[in-house]
Amino acid sequence: MPLMKSWVDSANAADHPFPLNNLPYGVFSTPGSDPRCGVAIGDMILDMAAAEDAGLVDPGTGPLFDVPFWNEVMEEGPEIWTALRDRLTAILSEGSADRAAAEPLLVAQADAEMHLPFLVSEYTDFYAGRHHAFNVGTMFRGAENALPPNWLHIPIGYNGRASSVVVSGTPVRRPWGQIKGPDDDLPRFAPCARFDIELEMGAVVGQPSDGPVTVAEADAMIFGYVLLNDWSARDIQAWEYQPLGPFQAKATATSISPWIVTRAALEPFRCDTPAREFELLDHLKDCGPMLYDIDLSVTLAPEGGAQTTIARTNYREMYYSAAQQLAHHSTSGCPMNPGDLLGSGTISGPTKPERGSLLELSWGGREPITLDGGQTRSFVEDGDTLTLQGAARGDGYTIGFGTCTGKALAALDDPYAR
Amino acid sequence: MPLMKSWVDSANAADHPFPLNNLPYGVFSTPGSDPRCGVAIGDMILDMAAAEDAGLVDPGTGPLFDVPFWNEVMEEGPEIWTALRDRLTAILSEGSADRAAAEPLLVAQADAEMHLPFLVSEYTDFYAGRHHAFNVGTMFRGAENALPPNWLHIPIGYNGRASSVVVSGTPVRRPWGQIKGPDDDLPRFAPCARFDIELEMGAVVGQPSDGPVTVAEADAMIFGYVLLNDWSARDIQAWEYQPLGPFQAKATATSISPWIVTRAALEPFRCDTPAREFELLDHLKDCGPMLYDIDLSVTLAPEGGAQTTIARTNYREMYYSAAQQLAHHSTSGCPMNPGDLLGSGTISGPTKPERGSLLELSWGGREPITLDGGQTRSFVEDGDTLTLQGAARGDGYTIGFGTCTGKALAALDDPYAR
Repeated sequence: MPLMKSWVDSANAADHPFPLNNLPYGVFSTPGSDPRCGVAIGDMILDMAAAEDAGLVDPGTGPLFDVPFWNEVMEEGPEIWTALRDRLTAILSEGSADRAAAEPLLVAQADAEMHLPFLVSEYTDFYAGRHHAFNVGTMFRGAENALPPNWLHIPIGYNGRASSVVVSGTPVRRPWGQIKGPDDDLPRFAPCARFDIELEMGAVVGQPSDGPVTVAEADAMIFGYVLLNDWSARDIQAWEYQPLGPFQAKATATSISPWIVTRAALEPFRCDTPAREFELLDHLKDCGPMLYDIDLSVTLAPEGGAQTTIARTNYREMYYSAAQQLAHHSTSGCPMNPGDLLGSGTISGPTKPERGSLLELSWGGREPITLDGGQTRSFVEDGDTLTLQGAARGDGYTIGFGTCTGKALAALDDPYAR
Repeated sequence: MPLMKSWVDSANAADHPFPLNNLPYGVFSTPGSDPRCGVAIGDMILDMAAAEDAGLVDPGTGPLFDVPFWNEVMEEGPEIWTALRDRLTAILSEGSADRAAAEPLLVAQADAEMHLPFLVSEYTDFYAGRHHAFNVGTMFRGAENALPPNWLHIPIGYNGRASSVVVSGTPVRRPWGQIKGPDDDLPRFAPCARFDIELEMGAVVGQPSDGPVTVAEADAMIFGYVLLNDWSARDIQAWEYQPLGPFQAKATATSISPWIVTRAALEPFRCDTPAREFELLDHLKDCGPMLYDIDLSVTLAPEGGAQTTIARTNYREMYYSAAQQLAHHSTSGCPMNPGDLLGSGTISGPTKPERGSLLELSWGGREPITLDGGQTRSFVEDGDTLTLQGAARGDGYTIGFGTCTGKALAALDDPYAR
């Protein structure tokens, strides 16, 4: 599929993240206005609440867009998702008869503040990138025992904390926590000294389930994808995670990009999961290409300094697709709901510059990386801004995710010294 | 404090779970009516939506009770909680001038269906009962290594799945999952063969936090308590839980009792946590009695058979209070919200009949227990009804929790054979 041309000129550049082929869904506000649904097109946002008021968009469902979340659209289901996307494509296409009505409803992205695009019902984070799991396992258990025995048979995941999900741009404060170093006799309560990021994709569940679903059914339940940075306190994690998994180490913040890129927009970029070392059991077996070819990168900019690209990788490096993760999530009968967010797990490629966390990039802090300008980093320092970017490259166009950025703030003074 | 007498006669019996001293909050419906808030008094329920309509209850906040959850009351905060309880006590007291107006608003509990009493925002389950952790650890790692190194320093917890929380009375279907026995070469997908219960208390968070809170602040955020049965698939758990903790093994269902017993009603039963082996760090240190003396029991009734009490213990056996768990939960800055539910972790006492799970009662299935009538049990069998009960015993009165019950249904036929 080539670039689809829009009458919004900025959308027609081959490297623009938001061409007519994309049409990602977000929630925005302008000074003095309430947050409401919008669709990105080039440098602009089509105000969906205004479009609905004007009768330009009417999926026949009753009002959907004058709210600060896309959950209501998700709940309407795949037929409405398709009808809405078709209608938006018609409105914004070059030569559209709707241009005169729609043009006054555009808002410049530069004038808008972005909010979380959906109400996060529950948040699950997986550990389904093989290179990441191998790197972390090698650091902690040696290369022979790097992958846990279950790793090649199920997408390992744990429940995270939905209340800690924030939109790109929200500053993230270095947490305190209980920490015990390998040479300490007793734990102490201190600011995290090994604050890290995790480069992930987030899958947004758009339809409910109330029993086990197949991989194909799971794929059809997914509304879209976002970039996701799962901020991680490695020293807190090391002390707390046995035997019940990460808890406070992952509860400070998880940042997501503000635009949900729909599954429909990503269709041309589907690709297969890697070769399987063990055949997966039937309920998890691949039944079509369900990963996506999405280039990903991470930049780090120190306070007042220029940004350095510290990692480049691709979503196709995952061992399990989001559809497989969602199918696994449902096996127990666990009810899944619109607004559930599934983090892919850290995405790393096979080589050093493809690692999606500082833990891996600095090999546990033993090999600090050097930034442009000469500073070194083992973990995140106060004032650093970390930014994820993602884009699928089509034939003369780009399906971009925008950015997922966050600045690390210094820890509070002792929060219990009152 | 002695029994407070009510004009609702059934409430005045010394062993009735719902005297005037209690006033627990639930959500009920009668045939043909919508679920709405109610307060238990003796064998009756005061219809709070009707009481609000009649002007009998007016906390000055706008309508709170014509909804199927107590979250709106929680959000109003402790002053309203106290004012509401005071007003209900006045209305329902022996000799109350409000009797004539209130009596027509009573509904018999026998005619009511109970629903979840609040919208569960997020659900966290802890592992904070020392005897339980010691028993489980001994089974898997031997008595010397029974407690993980962090156990005596932090209340270990993991995030559970709010969507799987169900009200008492909801049948629970035996899950399928990926299972690999110790002698199997490869995992297989099969119905759970080691389906279990966990006797727990649930603390209902009633006020939000957006940063670290002290133990005293955490205690004040708790709205009330319920009984909680965390259904657990032990064989699924054994295969999946390393390294990121329990996931699908705990996602089939968590049952809670339908009545929130308020913190105010439990005040007379506060008691201390046990002696500390290691002094807790300041942020977790005890600052007053924050456990409660609540007798707990579990019964098992086979399909069509009589029930046997299989365990008796007490909430004071916990090592960490819910306030300590909530304070720990907040250390990372994790935002906590009204409607968050914190499971205490399985409550076991020091002796065999005090064990709060079948895993412990049957010592991993090696020592099946014998029910009245001669049947034996290692784990839950299809058709079994498991019931938790809890009550604090006062001077001539009881603060009861009602029951938390659920019947185990047979697994589905292979859910993927379609």
